[in-house]
Amino acid sequence: MTVSARPTAAPQPAGPATHVRTALATVCISGTLEDKLDAAAAAGFDGVEIFEPDLVASSSSPAAVRSRCADLGLSIDLYQPFRDFDDVRPEVVEANLRRAERKFDVMEQLGTDLVLVCSSCIPTAVAEDDRIAEQLHRLAVRAAARGIRVAYEALAWGREVNTYERSWEVVRRADHPALGLCVDSFHILSRGSDPAGIRDIPADKLFFLQLADAPMLDMDVLQWSRHHRLFPGQGTFDLPAFLGHVLSAGYDGPLSLEVFNDVFRQSDPRRTAVDARRSLLALAEATTDRVPPAVRGTLASTALPPEPTLRGYAFAELAVDAGSAPALAATLAALGFTHSGQHRSKPVQLWRYGAATVLVNASGRPGAAVAAIGVETADPGAALRRAEALLAPAHPQPHGPAEADLSAVAAPDGTEVFFCRTGADDATSWLSDFVPTGTGTDAGDAGITHIDHVALTQPFDSFDEAALFYRGLLGLRTQHASEVAAPFGLVRNRAVSDAARTVRLCLSVSVLRRGEWGPAVTDPQHVAFATDDVLAVARAARAAGAPVLDIPDNYYDDLDARLAPPPDLLARMRELGVLLDRDADGEFLHFYTEVLGGRVFFEVVQRVAGYAGYGELNGPVRMAAHRRQRARAGDR
Amino acid sequence: MTVSARPTAAPQPAGPATHVRTALATVCISGTLEDKLDAAAAAGFDGVEIFEPDLVASSSSPAAVRSRCADLGLSIDLYQPFRDFDDVRPEVVEANLRRAERKFDVMEQLGTDLVLVCSSCIPTAVAEDDRIAEQLHRLAVRAAARGIRVAYEALAWGREVNTYERSWEVVRRADHPALGLCVDSFHILSRGSDPAGIRDIPADKLFFLQLADAPMLDMDVLQWSRHHRLFPGQGTFDLPAFLGHVLSAGYDGPLSLEVFNDVFRQSDPRRTAVDARRSLLALAEATTDRVPPAVRGTLASTALPPEPTLRGYAFAELAVDAGSAPALAATLAALGFTHSGQHRSKPVQLWRYGAATVLVNASGRPGAAVAAIGVETADPGAALRRAEALLAPAHPQPHGPAEADLSAVAAPDGTEVFFCRTGADDATSWLSDFVPTGTGTDAGDAGITHIDHVALTQPFDSFDEAALFYRGLLGLRTQHASEVAAPFGLVRNRAVSDAARTVRLCLSVSVLRRGEWGPAVTDPQHVAFATDDVLAVARAARAAGAPVLDIPDNYYDDLDARLAPPPDLLARMRELGVLLDRDADGEFLHFYTEVLGGRVFFEVVQRVAGYAGYGELNGPVRMAAHRRQRARAGDR
Repeated sequence: MTVSARPTAAPQPAGPATHVRTALATVCISGTLEDKLDAAAAAGFDGVEIFEPDLVASSSSPAAVRSRCADLGLSIDLYQPFRDFDDVRPEVVEANLRRAERKFDVMEQLGTDLVLVCSSCIPTAVAEDDRIAEQLHRLAVRAAARGIRVAYEALAWGREVNTYERSWEVVRRADHPALGLCVDSFHILSRGSDPAGIRDIPADKLFFLQLADAPMLDMDVLQWSRHHRLFPGQGTFDLPAFLGHVLSAGYDGPLSLEVFNDVFRQSDPRRTAVDARRSLLALAEATTDRVPPAVRGTLASTALPPEPTLRGYAFAELAVDAGSAPALAATLAALGFTHSGQHRSKPVQLWRYGAATVLVNASGRPGAAVAAIGVETADPGAALRRAEALLAPAHPQPHGPAEADLSAVAAPDGTEVFFCRTGADDATSWLSDFVPTGTGTDAGDAGITHIDHVALTQPFDSFDEAALFYRGLLGLRTQHASEVAAPFGLVRNRAVSDAARTVRLCLSVSVLRRGEWGPAVTDPQHVAFATDDVLAVARAARAAGAPVLDIPDNYYDDLDARLAPPPDLLARMRELGVLLDRDADGEFLHFYTEVLGGRVFFEVVQRVAGYAGYGELNGPVRMAAHRRQRARAGDR
Repeated sequence: MTVSARPTAAPQPAGPATHVRTALATVCISGTLEDKLDAAAAAGFDGVEIFEPDLVASSSSPAAVRSRCADLGLSIDLYQPFRDFDDVRPEVVEANLRRAERKFDVMEQLGTDLVLVCSSCIPTAVAEDDRIAEQLHRLAVRAAARGIRVAYEALAWGREVNTYERSWEVVRRADHPALGLCVDSFHILSRGSDPAGIRDIPADKLFFLQLADAPMLDMDVLQWSRHHRLFPGQGTFDLPAFLGHVLSAGYDGPLSLEVFNDVFRQSDPRRTAVDARRSLLALAEATTDRVPPAVRGTLASTALPPEPTLRGYAFAELAVDAGSAPALAATLAALGFTHSGQHRSKPVQLWRYGAATVLVNASGRPGAAVAAIGVETADPGAALRRAEALLAPAHPQPHGPAEADLSAVAAPDGTEVFFCRTGADDATSWLSDFVPTGTGTDAGDAGITHIDHVALTQPFDSFDEAALFYRGLLGLRTQHASEVAAPFGLVRNRAVSDAARTVRLCLSVSVLRRGEWGPAVTDPQHVAFATDDVLAVARAARAAGAPVLDIPDNYYDDLDARLAPPPDLLARMRELGVLLDRDADGEFLHFYTEVLGGRVFFEVVQRVAGYAGYGELNGPVRMAAHRRQRARAGDR
């Protein structure tokens, strides 16, 4: 239970080869070709697609790349892309055939036999199916003579051929055994095509499968494709259905990722490759019930322990330095928490109010941070095995002989995630590590009942990775997403939770990575506690000296104009610093504390009726108030 | 001629008020309301639009904001926005009228009399013109009773009212003196509406004008508007034509900027405000010939000294540390340059080859950088006065009594820009500061002839600012823009030049601000020299020991496949490390040196026929090669 550094080491490659082979296009990740191959192998991929510009810029000869891949245990499944082959100008077709022969030379040295040919995008693209088929047939004859096969792909923005139905029609007419199809989920789903028709394509003509997810964006499809693709499970495409169709058709090649993403292109490739492979493992699991029994057996070879059923937060752990610990403890006490336990071997205090448990770990680095969360589940061991199968970096905890064997995994932002079965009699109850202080139990009044949510500011490079991590490991689905105009730049929020809403997590990130302007920490992390009477808790907390955040009068004047709460309620909210949000389902009343120890604060929330949001609209007001607080304190 | 820090101090506000008033919406820039008002005043704006969320999050009362603005010399020209007023539900209209009265209270305390009301975007927006007009009339009656006027604006994504023609029709029918129009260039031009019709709207109904530019993007107009607006002159809208129509109609209110931009929202507001005001000064100049003579007089009150006519680069200056200077000097010598002059009072060497002049200033910080450029113009004094009128931070140069009075301005990235009249007999010739070394003149052979271009990597926050800076000061227009997939992330390029192509400048930036992965300096700056025989220069340079950058064989194999240059040419290029690009206009042959002193390198280019590009397609190959070079040298 120490503050962990942001993990960068990738887990070990999976040992025995699974039956579902996974591949990664080198274009998905950042770095030189050598960086990319190393990262793909370290993440456990079986193969790669070599993206031509990566090879062209490399000082390694194709033969050296082949040798390096062999050493790394990577097959080279595809060489790509070959663009704008078909053309109405005969002399250009001749030049393109020459160009292809030169590329076949390269492929021969690489030791790969499959090349991706995209449909033409230029004004001189051929319009007639038979004529395209004839030109592709010529290419296939040349390829076959070299022992090479051609996978033809319809780009969504192809000049003439831009649907998989049309590319299949052309391939069918060309009728050459060395010519087949590459189907790419982005090109098909971005156009709204129905992928069910893929089931009707003969398996021996499905040469290759490229997978990519994407957020639903209303923009030019080429720009959408080149900048905003995501790994499966990070976007909105129904990839289990798509993959189900392709596997049901009999495709038995690798599941290969081709994702163009502005962030992934410049992030640490070792991390991105792990994220990528995790997405395929989760996709294979989600696709199992979409395929015939025969195929199901193949997918089952990658089977994961089942998704855990969660039962709320066991605890949130704050790592603080010795200087910050008193302010944290005093604030928890003023909120009504009791210091009810002390760890047997570590400087960790256990604070409790109702079912809300906060651990204050004074062995932390300077400042304060949310270092860990514990979630309740019936079988922590199975949950941990699932997490490890999904390539989560494990953080085995050192523990004394009488202490629980408690293990955690590290989330993309370095937060540790513990799987807990609180109250169990056996050694898996983490509570047995704590000695009761005997200084009383909680007051039993109408105060704080449990942890409502934890809010974690994400590193810029891992916002989408985090969503997939929590979804895969904990089954947390995106509940809603929002974007708010904060004082120092736009902030993107994504709230995830289990189906029963017992574990809610708010992830946030700047829309653009921040520069030097603005506070060094623009959006600290926080833990939000639930109550059934936020006004009473706020009043008691203020009376007890809690540093409740002051909210400006302008906010209440605007609230009056917008939502017109009853005047006496408005007056009490104004007095206490309680904020309000309202939607069609209900209301949300909440207050914040000041930022403590540099990077953490608390929130207390009351949900009225069916309100399921997080009051994000009030976020900018809170951020400006925190900014004033910290400016007064002399922080940057 | 020292390396300057990136300037952050804004220039002083303009002294006497001009007749064309300029205003800035607080939403354009980053920070708290207090930060924004300070920045607007420091940049010399006459007034502001107060964006409601900025006020709501502020702890300053409206009366305190009024007082602060008065102290800063800023008028509050508009309070905005008031959204979703008209509604088919009578009870909502009543609530909205109450909401408006509360906002009128705020405006009274602010001391402003104009409120922006946007067309409704909700499903319950009113569809019938007469009914909208009736509701707006009710609002106008209430406003008039408080001494307030309402400026009604058609949002481009308004549910029913989304064109200025429709908003004018509604305002016309409402027929109340307290109700007029706000016209916003983005909402009108993003939809492709013809703004000429604005001329037919009575001047007394044009209550307010909001100006924004934007790049041409094929995407959802709401997202386009909220994230990608730019200041006038940074995008592709014809704003001089637009403003010409509005002024010709008789509008005499402020020119006010309302720009939502992800970068500006999180950049230093003092810099952004200067950029913003510069855009209006340049726009006023560009609009002068679009308006009737009477209005022209008003615009002339902001008249700038004329755009300079450029005649090429006078010099490029490299600032180097003592450790790097020998490598720089040796490389220039190996390229054929002669050390032909020494500064009278500073450790600056003058190197020359043909008309290419490079100053090597050994008083620089660690490493090396392009510290300054000098451009030739007939009247350096007028060019400097124009630059200062356009708010460029001046960098007066300390000089001895016998030295030229040479002044520079600082570009957004800190590069100094000198205006030079080389060869003049008077003291304005900067060359008189240099004592000839007598070590010979240039060889007079077919080597380097002049500086072809200078390439400057821009700080992330100032890419668009830089384009406007060089356009405004030097008349450099965007020649072309491109985006390349570089090994460590996407890179955006924008080449600007004068009409005669004597001063070409390449600006580049990462598409996203980079994080920690990848080399610390991913894209060093460079100076490119022109030659008529790049192969000869490359051969001589290699023979003389210049560190010419090695280009991998894979590149030449790909070049053979793609462009099929004659085999003997290809062989020589491969031997010498010369690269090739080809387009419809001609060919481009070029080679690079290694990176010297950490952040600078040289390029030698040969343009064949009408080729006007910069070989950006070869950029990723160059970047990967530089990465290998620096990895060998142990740099990060």
